[in-house]
Amino acid sequence: MASSFKRLLIGKPIATEHQHHERLSRVTALAVFSSDALSSVAYATEAILAVLILGGSAALGLSLGIGIGIGVLLVVVAFSYRQTIRAYPKGGGGYIVARENLGDLPGLIAAGALLIDYVLTVAVSISAGVAAITSLGGTWGFSEIKNYAVEIGLFFIALVTVANLRGVKESGVIFAVPTYAFITSILVMIAYALVRDAMVGPTPVVHPIAPEIPVAGETIGLWLVMRAFAAGCTALTGIEAISDGVPAFKTPESKNASATLSWMVGLLVTMFLGITYLAHLHGAVPNEFTHETVVSQIARTVFGTGPIYFIIQAATALILVLAANTAYADFPRLASFLSRDRFLPRQFSSRGDRLVFSNGILALGFFSALLVVVFQANEIAMLPLYAIGVFISFTLSQSGMVKRHLTVKEEGWRRGALINGIGATLTAVVLVVLSVTKFTHGAWVVMVLIPLLVILFQVIHRHYIGVAEQLSLTTAAKPIPVRRLTAICLVSGIHKGVLPALELAKSLAPDNVTAVYVNLDPEHIERVKTRWAEWGCEVPLVVLESPYRSLITPLMNYIDEIEGRYRDGHVMVILPEFIPLRWWEHLLHNQTGLILRTALMFRKGKTVISVPYKLERK
Amino acid sequence: MASSFKRLLIGKPIATEHQHHERLSRVTALAVFSSDALSSVAYATEAILAVLILGGSAALGLSLGIGIGIGVLLVVVAFSYRQTIRAYPKGGGGYIVARENLGDLPGLIAAGALLIDYVLTVAVSISAGVAAITSLGGTWGFSEIKNYAVEIGLFFIALVTVANLRGVKESGVIFAVPTYAFITSILVMIAYALVRDAMVGPTPVVHPIAPEIPVAGETIGLWLVMRAFAAGCTALTGIEAISDGVPAFKTPESKNASATLSWMVGLLVTMFLGITYLAHLHGAVPNEFTHETVVSQIARTVFGTGPIYFIIQAATALILVLAANTAYADFPRLASFLSRDRFLPRQFSSRGDRLVFSNGILALGFFSALLVVVFQANEIAMLPLYAIGVFISFTLSQSGMVKRHLTVKEEGWRRGALINGIGATLTAVVLVVLSVTKFTHGAWVVMVLIPLLVILFQVIHRHYIGVAEQLSLTTAAKPIPVRRLTAICLVSGIHKGVLPALELAKSLAPDNVTAVYVNLDPEHIERVKTRWAEWGCEVPLVVLESPYRSLITPLMNYIDEIEGRYRDGHVMVILPEFIPLRWWEHLLHNQTGLILRTALMFRKGKTVISVPYKLERK
Repeated sequence: MASSFKRLLIGKPIATEHQHHERLSRVTALAVFSSDALSSVAYATEAILAVLILGGSAALGLSLGIGIGIGVLLVVVAFSYRQTIRAYPKGGGGYIVARENLGDLPGLIAAGALLIDYVLTVAVSISAGVAAITSLGGTWGFSEIKNYAVEIGLFFIALVTVANLRGVKESGVIFAVPTYAFITSILVMIAYALVRDAMVGPTPVVHPIAPEIPVAGETIGLWLVMRAFAAGCTALTGIEAISDGVPAFKTPESKNASATLSWMVGLLVTMFLGITYLAHLHGAVPNEFTHETVVSQIARTVFGTGPIYFIIQAATALILVLAANTAYADFPRLASFLSRDRFLPRQFSSRGDRLVFSNGILALGFFSALLVVVFQANEIAMLPLYAIGVFISFTLSQSGMVKRHLTVKEEGWRRGALINGIGATLTAVVLVVLSVTKFTHGAWVVMVLIPLLVILFQVIHRHYIGVAEQLSLTTAAKPIPVRRLTAICLVSGIHKGVLPALELAKSLAPDNVTAVYVNLDPEHIERVKTRWAEWGCEVPLVVLESPYRSLITPLMNYIDEIEGRYRDGHVMVILPEFIPLRWWEHLLHNQTGLILRTALMFRKGKTVISVPYKLERK
Repeated sequence: MASSFKRLLIGKPIATEHQHHERLSRVTALAVFSSDALSSVAYATEAILAVLILGGSAALGLSLGIGIGIGVLLVVVAFSYRQTIRAYPKGGGGYIVARENLGDLPGLIAAGALLIDYVLTVAVSISAGVAAITSLGGTWGFSEIKNYAVEIGLFFIALVTVANLRGVKESGVIFAVPTYAFITSILVMIAYALVRDAMVGPTPVVHPIAPEIPVAGETIGLWLVMRAFAAGCTALTGIEAISDGVPAFKTPESKNASATLSWMVGLLVTMFLGITYLAHLHGAVPNEFTHETVVSQIARTVFGTGPIYFIIQAATALILVLAANTAYADFPRLASFLSRDRFLPRQFSSRGDRLVFSNGILALGFFSALLVVVFQANEIAMLPLYAIGVFISFTLSQSGMVKRHLTVKEEGWRRGALINGIGATLTAVVLVVLSVTKFTHGAWVVMVLIPLLVILFQVIHRHYIGVAEQLSLTTAAKPIPVRRLTAICLVSGIHKGVLPALELAKSLAPDNVTAVYVNLDPEHIERVKTRWAEWGCEVPLVVLESPYRSLITPLMNYIDEIEGRYRDGHVMVILPEFIPLRWWEHLLHNQTGLILRTALMFRKGKTVISVPYKLERK
């Protein structure tokens, strides 16, 4: 039953040979990889304004300049990443580029930073998507919907997780429609608003409850600008996604990926600056009373609260929810790279029924759901933790590219080194700004987590390397043939389930079999002995006393004793195990088989032979 | 580490031979078995008043008459139970007496009813104990303590659970002091108040916020009286405890138990009527604003809010918390009886390290903690569910005694049958009153649960009887000696861990061994084959293809095939199993050993030989 539910949910298994068919066209790839980057326009402008508002209404005007600064940064980083895509047609995420060019430690730092950021991407995007829905609800008079923000968020996480467990091609189809609907609706809104404003002048936003703008706020100085800039840098999250996913593109992979990246950044800069400009023009600001998003304020001011407003809110919500999908493409892939290089458990590199890295998908779903619950689906509270990881990865990856240009010296390496050098320097400066301005607001958590993750990677690595060394045949002596076999059959009494085990024991070690019984119930011991004489298949019975009613201790002592006696032999322990017909019947029997087997194998390193005794169904 | 924590918590194991030493003197037994019954005076009067108040202040005067009625009921039931103690020196709880005299079904109904009531005893007593503490806190100006009621309750449940896991004799010593402190302080309070009231006249209770007493309330009629009487019947819970625990007394068991029962009921009636009379005299009533208990109101009115008031509240809280202990003596014992008779999982009849029925103790702790959380430690809300079970048991047990007198005809059977007949009739009538008046207030839950429990008992019973029949040797054919042994060694590759398994396989089935490898990674298959030729110990290797990357399916198909080929033989599957050094290292390896073993044993009924390969510690 569990199995048919799984089939219904994620579909039939796909054979390994179909693996190469799961590739993406440019149009589909833009939808799959760019929803994260594009959707950040839904909250990046608001994040800038939420900082500037602390300086009073005069400071709000700075948003345009800050927006343009972020736009420039975006273009520089995009140019830098085109180099990476060309150099790494098999996929060059921060981890691979940093590790290959700078060494293990920088690579692992980039990997840890990215894993954390992917989890945050899911949590932030889903929560922002829920905010778009609750803004719509508030405008249309269903403000109670706010109370279900966490539940809605968890539902969407479950939905995206299942879609990804089904496989990336199908998710491409599912996600293309909302991504393009969002792009279209935002571009149409910007164009229509600019034309209308030019003709009739901009209408200011009307708030049901006016937001509180401090009259004498914080000093409008460098610190405020830096903080606002740092807040807006969330617009850059997700643009590395394409470089990580080059092998998922149709051939020629690098060329298609590069073109898709350019398109994505072009759209992103246009939409981000457009929304920032419209917010400025119409006076849209974060409202701590209604919690209405800035995009929602602009949309309903431009189009009224009718169907077009609904379409914009719905498309925003959808792309935000689906932005999480970018992380679902990247997190499992990065985890599989780390796993392949023995820095994460090997379970992360095995492909599930549908050829996707199911364990990575499930881990991402779990941790992001946890964040949504902990932060109560409040994306504004999560933002200070966000973007740090991406900028660590940007800086390391581009520094790696500089090193690569200087070492490999391919055609055009001077130009490449310059581009990547500018990118690395700029992102490093931004990283310092982010760390300093966001530290006390939560960024310290990420800065503590990253080193812990790096240590975890290294501990796991040491374990796997140690195991591989010990299992290596190059140091193996020729195996010693087994000489004398001794069989000890553990019995819980004398009944029908014991007989096949005794017969097998006699056949395996004809001249050296003992049955062992632990006496837990002194009242019945004489009866057991009598019945053994009749039914014991001529196997001698040893009765062990157990004053403290323990099964394990007397058995272990006895086996130690036997082992001391037959130093040259191989002692096998035979366990007749009772197999119930139905799962719940396990609860009605002591799990002695399991406990004994664990103790014998793990503590004693003994060979254990389980002889099942299955009941017949009546 | 887990093991030394367990030692610290519950102490060293006790040997089976010390079992008979754990017996109780009368004085200790009164503390262990009567705290439940005695402590109910802390809430029984209040429960009566909480119903009567609905009829307005005029109805409150009825409390005296109702109290006397309950006192009479108590004495009748006590007389009835003395008969049971005499007839059942080995312990005659409702389950045993009903089952032995009336049959399985009445016995199981009594057992189910009692198990539920024991869980409620713990939850109600602990919650009422917490109420005594919060009343004290409120009077002394720490009213915030109310917000931690659930946490305090859970802490006390944990405490009592651990005390009982350590063993009953020690818990007797722990619990004697508070029980006698409670008895003394309540008796002193009653005596002092009566003398003082006679001399200077009773002072009425002063409420910080006056309780709301309806002016034109419900009609003062039979229905109100019946409901108040039903509420007061909670005073009877726990008086059956002694009859259930006769074997825990020092010899002569029956005589000591009978004397202890008389003392207990005498004390109970005195304290209950005393408190009810004082409540009437001083006008103490439940207060829905301050949530102060009636006992707290009387105590502070009589003694002021000084140290004596503190002692009374503390002793009340302690005995209520410890009243739970009665259930901890009875629930595990009843569960062990049911388990011995194969109506509950056998784990309930095995004694733990300290000779107590640990599983019963833990189950009781778990379910009562659950109730405290669900009802938010509000004992008033739980009371309607309470007492139903006890009265079902009273009625069935005393009916059983009547049957027994009529059948066995021991000396004085006519008198005995009369006493038990009166008891049975009276409790049956009360049971009907309880069921009718409390049904819609929550009693229906218990009435649904009891039949479900009875069905569960019967399902478990059928399973155990079925297993016993199938394992019975009386129907066993002479075992067939094993003829031809076939060994299949499953390998995950060729490495050092595989070699001992191959050697054992060759030695067990010299002429019939195959190694099987499932090809999950087509890229490496040639290398595996080459290495096998060199290191494979001359065992032939079979490579199975697996298009859907499943390990289980191709193996199972192969084993089916082999089995079809050697119909007369015994196919053994040999699993080389890798044993990590530390527990967390398990997470870094696929649990294929466990999965394969489960599939082979449970689905196929195959003999599985696990050959451990343990790493060396470096």
